[in-house]
Amino acid sequence: MRTSLGIAVAGFGWMGRVHTQSYLRVSHHFPDLPVRPRLRAVADEVPGRAEEAADRYGFATATRDWRDLLADPAVEAVSIGAPNFLHREMGVAFARAGKHIWIEKPVGLTSADARAVADAVRAAGVRGTVGFNYRNAPAVAAARDLIAAGELGAVTHARFRLFSDYAAHPDGALSWRFERARGGSGVLGDLAAHGVDLVRHLLGEIGALVADTAVFVPERPRPSGATAGHMRAAGGERGAVENEDYVSAQLRLTSGARVVLEASRVAVGDQNNYGFEVHGTRGAVAWDFRRMGELAVSSGGDYQDQPTRTVHVGPGHGEYAAFQPGAGIAMSYDDLKVIEAAHFLRSIAEGRPYGATLDDAVRSAEALDAMAASAESGSWVTLATR
Amino acid sequence: MRTSLGIAVAGFGWMGRVHTQSYLRVSHHFPDLPVRPRLRAVADEVPGRAEEAADRYGFATATRDWRDLLADPAVEAVSIGAPNFLHREMGVAFARAGKHIWIEKPVGLTSADARAVADAVRAAGVRGTVGFNYRNAPAVAAARDLIAAGELGAVTHARFRLFSDYAAHPDGALSWRFERARGGSGVLGDLAAHGVDLVRHLLGEIGALVADTAVFVPERPRPSGATAGHMRAAGGERGAVENEDYVSAQLRLTSGARVVLEASRVAVGDQNNYGFEVHGTRGAVAWDFRRMGELAVSSGGDYQDQPTRTVHVGPGHGEYAAFQPGAGIAMSYDDLKVIEAAHFLRSIAEGRPYGATLDDAVRSAEALDAMAASAESGSWVTLATR
Amino acid sequence: MRTSLGIAVAGFGWMGRVHTQSYLRVSHHFPDLPVRPRLRAVADEVPGRAEEAADRYGFATATRDWRDLLADPAVEAVSIGAPNFLHREMGVAFARAGKHIWIEKPVGLTSADARAVADAVRAAGVRGTVGFNYRNAPAVAAARDLIAAGELGAVTHARFRLFSDYAAHPDGALSWRFERARGGSGVLGDLAAHGVDLVRHLLGEIGALVADTAVFVPERPRPSGATAGHMRAAGGERGAVENEDYVSAQLRLTSGARVVLEASRVAVGDQNNYGFEVHGTRGAVAWDFRRMGELAVSSGGDYQDQPTRTVHVGPGHGEYAAFQPGAGIAMSYDDLKVIEAAHFLRSIAEGRPYGATLDDAVRSAEALDAMAASAESGSWVTLATR
Amino acid sequence: MRTSLGIAVAGFGWMGRVHTQSYLRVSHHFPDLPVRPRLRAVADEVPGRAEEAADRYGFATATRDWRDLLADPAVEAVSIGAPNFLHREMGVAFARAGKHIWIEKPVGLTSADARAVADAVRAAGVRGTVGFNYRNAPAVAAARDLIAAGELGAVTHARFRLFSDYAAHPDGALSWRFERARGGSGVLGDLAAHGVDLVRHLLGEIGALVADTAVFVPERPRPSGATAGHMRAAGGERGAVENEDYVSAQLRLTSGARVVLEASRVAVGDQNNYGFEVHGTRGAVAWDFRRMGELAVSSGGDYQDQPTRTVHVGPGHGEYAAFQPGAGIAMSYDDLKVIEAAHFLRSIAEGRPYGATLDDAVRSAEALDAMAASAESGSWVTLATR
Ligand SMILES: NC(=O)C1=CN([C@@H]2O[C@H](COP(=O)(O)OP(=O)(O)OC[C@H]3O[C@@H](n4cnc5c(N)ncnc54)[C@H](O)[C@@H]3O)[C@@H](O)[C@H]2O)C=CC1
Ligand SMILES: NC(=O)C1=CN([C@@H]2O[C@H](COP(=O)(O)OP(=O)(O)OC[C@H]3O[C@@H](n4cnc5c(N)ncnc54)[C@H](O)[C@@H]3O)[C@@H](O)[C@H]2O)C=CC1
Ligand SMILES: NC(=O)C1=CN([C@@H]2O[C@H](COP(=O)(O)OP(=O)(O)OC[C@H]3O[C@@H](n4cnc5c(N)ncnc54)[C@H](O)[C@@H]3O)[C@@H](O)[C@H]2O)C=CC1
Ligand SMILES: NC(=O)C1=CN([C@@H]2O[C@H](COP(=O)(O)OP(=O)(O)OC[C@H]3O[C@@H](n4cnc5c(N)ncnc54)[C@H](O)[C@@H]3O)[C@@H](O)[C@H]2O)C=CC1
Repeated sequence: MRTSLGIAVAGFGWMGRVHTQSYLRVSHHFPDLPVRPRLRAVADEVPGRAEEAADRYGFATATRDWRDLLADPAVEAVSIGAPNFLHREMGVAFARAGKHIWIEKPVGLTSADARAVADAVRAAGVRGTVGFNYRNAPAVAAARDLIAAGELGAVTHARFRLFSDYAAHPDGALSWRFERARGGSGVLGDLAAHGVDLVRHLLGEIGALVADTAVFVPERPRPSGATAGHMRAAGGERGAVENEDYVSAQLRLTSGARVVLEASRVAVGDQNNYGFEVHGTRGAVAWDFRRMGELAVSSGGDYQDQPTRTVHVGPGHGEYAAFQPGAGIAMSYDDLKVIEAAHFLRSIAEGRPYGATLDDAVRSAEALDAMAASAESGSWVTLATR
Repeated sequence: MRTSLGIAVAGFGWMGRVHTQSYLRVSHHFPDLPVRPRLRAVADEVPGRAEEAADRYGFATATRDWRDLLADPAVEAVSIGAPNFLHREMGVAFARAGKHIWIEKPVGLTSADARAVADAVRAAGVRGTVGFNYRNAPAVAAARDLIAAGELGAVTHARFRLFSDYAAHPDGALSWRFERARGGSGVLGDLAAHGVDLVRHLLGEIGALVADTAVFVPERPRPSGATAGHMRAAGGERGAVENEDYVSAQLRLTSGARVVLEASRVAVGDQNNYGFEVHGTRGAVAWDFRRMGELAVSSGGDYQDQPTRTVHVGPGHGEYAAFQPGAGIAMSYDDLKVIEAAHFLRSIAEGRPYGATLDDAVRSAEALDAMAASAESGSWVTLATR
Repeated sequence: MRTSLGIAVAGFGWMGRVHTQSYLRVSHHFPDLPVRPRLRAVADEVPGRAEEAADRYGFATATRDWRDLLADPAVEAVSIGAPNFLHREMGVAFARAGKHIWIEKPVGLTSADARAVADAVRAAGVRGTVGFNYRNAPAVAAARDLIAAGELGAVTHARFRLFSDYAAHPDGALSWRFERARGGSGVLGDLAAHGVDLVRHLLGEIGALVADTAVFVPERPRPSGATAGHMRAAGGERGAVENEDYVSAQLRLTSGARVVLEASRVAVGDQNNYGFEVHGTRGAVAWDFRRMGELAVSSGGDYQDQPTRTVHVGPGHGEYAAFQPGAGIAMSYDDLKVIEAAHFLRSIAEGRPYGATLDDAVRSAEALDAMAASAESGSWVTLATR
Repeated sequence: MRTSLGIAVAGFGWMGRVHTQSYLRVSHHFPDLPVRPRLRAVADEVPGRAEEAADRYGFATATRDWRDLLADPAVEAVSIGAPNFLHREMGVAFARAGKHIWIEKPVGLTSADARAVADAVRAAGVRGTVGFNYRNAPAVAAARDLIAAGELGAVTHARFRLFSDYAAHPDGALSWRFERARGGSGVLGDLAAHGVDLVRHLLGEIGALVADTAVFVPERPRPSGATAGHMRAAGGERGAVENEDYVSAQLRLTSGARVVLEASRVAVGDQNNYGFEVHGTRGAVAWDFRRMGELAVSSGGDYQDQPTRTVHVGPGHGEYAAFQPGAGIAMSYDDLKVIEAAHFLRSIAEGRPYGATLDDAVRSAEALDAMAASAESGSWVTLATR
């Protein structure tokens, strides 16, 4: 007998919509889930947006004020899809109100924010799932399995990249994303956060790092009127970009492996060029999000002149079998969120973590803070171990 | 005010499931659709399968006998996801019963079958949509637009391929797929049908063709007990494969363009290696299903030494914007079916065709029949023009 | 003790130059060759061209009349790099004069031409080597070895393509290449000849074929003054193109394998897009001349879902070790001709064939003739077996 | 009237051989060179090796002692292809003896070594060319031209990688390459040197850097007897590897651009995976040595969603036209050395630099020293500007 679980979504933009769709699809792919999500409430500050979402997706109620959700007893779990600067306030409040939370990365602007949410979740005894969705790609799961099984030997060096052109246009409006107070450290929270999570998920903890950052588009036109998404501004007066366009870092993992991580939001020519290449003493594995279903693997006992094979993921790799019956059939980005929804619901049902948790968000945020500090100081920064 | 439309699904295997999920998702992506599908009934002959589907997806009723759906007034439209040899009987019956049909390709075993269904649909005044889903890939839509806009000049020569390894194992059981009476012409209906549809969709009608076919795995072990999917048989007695593993054809289009089409179900090493390369007097375009979101385009005015660019499709290409907000974010195979569902529903609402119709199925089947005839006779076969 | 061998080159254009350089380089890579070529004489009808070649490369004598070479006793072997319509006359004359010949493909305009040269060579007891250089690529040699060793099982179906844009510009001058009397069958001799040779080299003899041809640029401007290479004409009056821009063919090999072969000289977007994909009952192998050092191989015992690996050729693959000490270091097109020179010299020294011979040229030309005949008749054409 | 130039080669291993062949080929490709190299003398300490080289390539004299060449008046220019630890001694001695030198990278073990050679060259008034051959690839030349022409806008961030598996086998013998005294800093001089040169050649000077290094195969079996190349040792006692397997660095260029550079000699799965990706405010360019003739270019005015095109280099790109008549025809690694030979000879003839000079070697070595120092200190290191 499946239990029903009352769901709310706070912040109904891109991610709010994808979380919502995931709740509606999760039982198609994971029929054995012991809980069934029911859409209870949606909140978004933009007038009409929550109502429209309720109408389209069947939420029972809609509001502009997310605080309305706190006291609603029908709401048992909340998806937080609001901008980063609201993650802490929302996350802490929902947790304290006894709601489980599925919160988007990076969970606030700093590691203090992430820790505050993590602490509140722990204190309240609720479950917390974080939107580090690239973990969920079957090819990434397959890579992790290969590495864990020792197919690559000991990992030696790796590279992780997150290159996007979403802020590449110099006339892209100077929205809140480019303010430090609301947009945090820019590309660090936006993209590098995913990279850090993948490093940790695949290779383990970071011991120390040294980083560099840069702003390549130092001024942008102030938006005239409200901007949505990454709008181009008509030509208003220019103001200063306050946070990072680019970050690079050299990491030393506690395992001894070396990692280079780079993220850019102004990488002209690159649309979601996200991926990694991991080398070990016996093999290598590489993945590119743009070809999400392919994994490049070099393994065997040859060491030198060892070829690399292209594997099209299929049933048996991560959660692929929940989506497609045979290898080489495209899954979508959104499917990764369906997997995340399943993790969230299962963790609630079973009272134990599945997938990325708030501890992962804290660790990731600590690494991002260390990168910012290192870029400032010009020194290696050692990360706390636990 | 949106109208509700009662839906049934007949044959609940892979495609039945994907159609069902598409009905449930279509309004997420196409909120303006004037009709809302409601899941009324599901039929599958395997005991328990329809009930399980009803339970999981919310169909109001379930049955083992698809004929039960014919008289059900709540059923206004039917998805036909049964094997090819049932397409004609089901398609004709549902159309005569006044139900709109969304029927899987290839619509029967021969062009006579497809024509019978097309005739019944026309006679009944219902709408018919056919599962030629590769058309719906945004990259394919973009390719079609490029060609139609004359960006490639006049199309000169092209190649279409559909290579799969689904029947490559010599110990794959001798299921109905390998019988002529139930599996028809084998790879022709299974894969080449998609290729013919893409040729016609992108480049126009076929004037004449010459074809060759082959069986490369002439014997397979008879299945011991029931087989599902492409099961491997334990080692029973071997029987003869009756239909084609491979087909190749040279086509002359009515436009004068030359096309080579190949399909194989025993292409070891290829998982869904489906795609095309089209050349014109001024450019070229190529697509590979395995990298569904990429399009290779050579255009401009250079003729010689003209580079080829990789385009990651995005909003503006086909129906991409209904799924993702920016370029280079993976869509799934299943999303192509959501687009197909939207075509079906819109065609019902508006009383005119959207997407692939039964006429397309007839044309495709005629080309497949011509291939079989040509392979038999060793001669070029001219296709009827209309 | 190495013997010296007096060399002449007849026709000093692109190929004449590359043959010459190969003679000068062959001992760098094949020091054990028992003969040492010495450049004795060069002939080219363009005033000054032979002299310049002699000056630059050290030929002892130069002439405009290739017949001068016939009686020169210092000339023991001749490279024939003149246009196709001269192959027969030159080849027969040099053979009759007792000279070994290294003759460029396709060896004349028809199989009768190739046979005449082959007969003269046989009658004179000299050696004949033909410029089917793609055979010599180490990756092609590796592919052949894989196939011969049964790594792919029995070959089932394959595709060979030779796509170039060298005649893609509609204002490319109407040179002799586009005349039937001097340019023969156009793209058939120019490009398809290489394809046929690769088919035979890798997969064995052709039993029968059906072909189609097309002219896509039917008129071109007549050249004003002399044209060299693929010059663009200034805008003279237009005349008719007499030979083929494109050919496609379906082949049935005597082994039972099916092959699709295509060649185009007007493939906009393609610069030397030459290559093949071969499937067998257990594996597959593919090669692309543009990435000459890479071979894509799928082998093993999996049949289905078997990955494809990228092999960077290295020592042990064909003659690679004569050029580079480790895998993945680029060889050039010209290096393939150095290998061909070694074959030629070794065949002279040892009195037995190495590499492609005039029999190969005859077989290739017969297949091209059959393609032309099939395109004319619309029927399958059976090739003679021997 | 061309002058003849007496050439010696000191150290006849891989590079000695390739230099020699380049001298013999350079006039084939660069007929207008005002000097003609004549092979006078060759020296190699391995008994018989110089004699064999003289025999095969036509050097007038051979010796085991390279100092014999110093006083030979027939020797006007010397190629230095001995191991790194001999570069300084040889380079200084030959320069002082008034010989022009073409010396292999990295020119000694440290920047002090490179500077000593540079100083000697300057003092003697001879010319010095350094073996930074990747510069000479036509695609690299094309990339440089694109960047210089501003097609990418201002360069923002870039990545350079040099990944090889040549030392990946843990049983590879502990040769001199792994000793600090003779092998220097390991992968830094071996591979990273090329990367630094490419950074400088394409993007300009390095202002500061922070680096990390690692040894991943800390022990190797001592060689039993003499080892050649990268031999595998039979199983002797293991000794410590003294120099680096891996280096990574973050660079700040004086232009403000950020660069990540990585080099590994133990990158299992990678055979000469050398290349770069350069991003600018308006475009991007990428190159991979394994596909030497291809350049990936994103340019235009789109900033976002701008596609990347694959350019097959051809005449007009760098020195391509000296080798091949049309785009997309493979050049070899060795051809890059022929271009280098042309640079060397032209610089001698004209008394001014062409291609990479000893100043480039000094700058490169300084960056490598800075990397070693930074890895030691954990701090950013500022490079001297001039
Ligand atoms: N996991 C992933 O791959 C991705 C994660 N994200 C994360 O998701 C979060 C949201 O990003 P997007 O959906 O792209 O942004 P978005 O701008 O599309 O949506 C944010 C929504 O929050 C609403 N909102 C703002 N203030 C609010 C308030 N006080 N109360 C209620 N609603 C409020 C906005 O009106 C908007 O509808 C961010 O934290 C981002 O980092 C975003 C994209 C991808
Ligand atoms: N558009 C596309 O890309 C694809 C199209 N197809 C087409 O879809 C059709 C079904 O293929 P799959 O779903 O792969 O097959 P499947 O074997 O997974 O499903 C067929 C279903 O029909 C049921 N069925 C059989 N006889 C029945 C009867 N008399 N009454 C009710 N149900 C019956 C079976 O029990 C089974 O559940 C085929 O025509 C195939 O060509 C299949 C896969 C992909
Ligand atoms: N194996 C391969 O990959 C290639 C083969 N070829 C073949 O090589 C042959 C020559 O082609 P290219 O070198 O590209 O042509 P080209 O036009 O560059 O050279 C032909 C040369 O022959 C000379 N010639 C013409 N008539 C002559 C005569 N009566 N006496 C002496 N010299 C005469 C011309 O003046 C010219 O220098 C052709 O048969 C072609 O099919 C060409 C290119 C590549
Ligand atoms: N530019 C490039 O891409 C490359 C550059 N190199 C550089 O070239 C140099 C040589 O490397 P390889 O040719 O690969 O090495 P190798 O080991 O093949 O050749 C070195 C040669 O120097 C000889 N030699 C050693 N001591 C000598 C002495 N005292 N007197 C005379 N000869 C002596 C050895 O006997 C051997 O023949 C190195 O500095 C290396 O960094 C090497 C490979 C590629």
